[in-house]
Amino acid sequence: MANHEANWLLPFQKICEKRNLEYTIGQGNQNQLAILPNLPSVQFGDLRVRSGNETHVVEIENGGGVTNLAKYWAALAPINVCEHIERVVLTHVYNRAYGYQSHHAIWNFLYSKMDVWPRFEAHLYVVAYEELDIVARLFAERIPINQQ
Amino acid sequence: MANHEANWLLPFQKICEKRNLEYTIGQGNQNQLAILPNLPSVQFGDLRVRSGNETHVVEIENGGGVTNLAKYWAALAPINVCEHIERVVLTHVYNRAYGYQSHHAIWNFLYSKMDVWPRFEAHLYVVAYEELDIVARLFAERIPINQQ
Repeated sequence: MANHEANWLLPFQKICEKRNLEYTIGQGNQNQLAILPNLPSVQFGDLRVRSGNETHVVEIENGGGVTNLAKYWAALAPINVCEHIERVVLTHVYNRAYGYQSHHAIWNFLYSKMDVWPRFEAHLYVVAYEELDIVARLFAERIPINQQ
Repeated sequence: MANHEANWLLPFQKICEKRNLEYTIGQGNQNQLAILPNLPSVQFGDLRVRSGNETHVVEIENGGGVTNLAKYWAALAPINVCEHIERVVLTHVYNRAYGYQSHHAIWNFLYSKMDVWPRFEAHLYVVAYEELDIVARLFAERIPINQQ
């Protein structure tokens, strides 16, 4: 994880700590999402919180790209699904400074095609660093308090 | 376009020249694919050849990512389609040295979902530089001689 990305996670970590939510960050062994058996896994979120049968993830993008949206579709498609993942809620944050408006349009298009509702839900934010506190609050509000 | 990517295009340029196929490369104004009106365009292939009502593109990936597949879906979806693009055939080349096997699985998954046949067709190659001549030949063989 690049330094810049780590900085962008800080507001999410801060609000998780305030809410006493246990979270996982980074690319360690404990943060793996399998696409297919026998293949190397991908990172299961830049930040991840498990709550009841829901998994809430944050992905930070400093460039463009929709791979971190598409990977959840591939992982959650019925034929591939890992039994222990029941529902994933993605907070997908793009740094507005980098532009890539067309990629955000591709994101919206792709999300409209993802036929894994209600097992997947995603929220796209194209923001500046100063706006992250709001996004982090919305992220935390989606996590049910009683199910921690 | 990174230098490394430019090197990977050379076998395709060579075979186009041998076959007298006119091609476009790079990010210039003449190589733009619109996702939505009023948004900046994305690059319409690292290399592109027009033949009759078909457009043949090569995309080179030195990292992972499926954005250069997804963008064609968004651009060719009926609601967005530009009238002058009738059919796109993508030769999508990943540098095998970088791994990303899971991304290739996501690619296959995503391609299986793309409901724009016959207006789009894609071929995935995960190869070493030494194998590019074969891929370039297959690329050129898909371009009908009579329609140039």
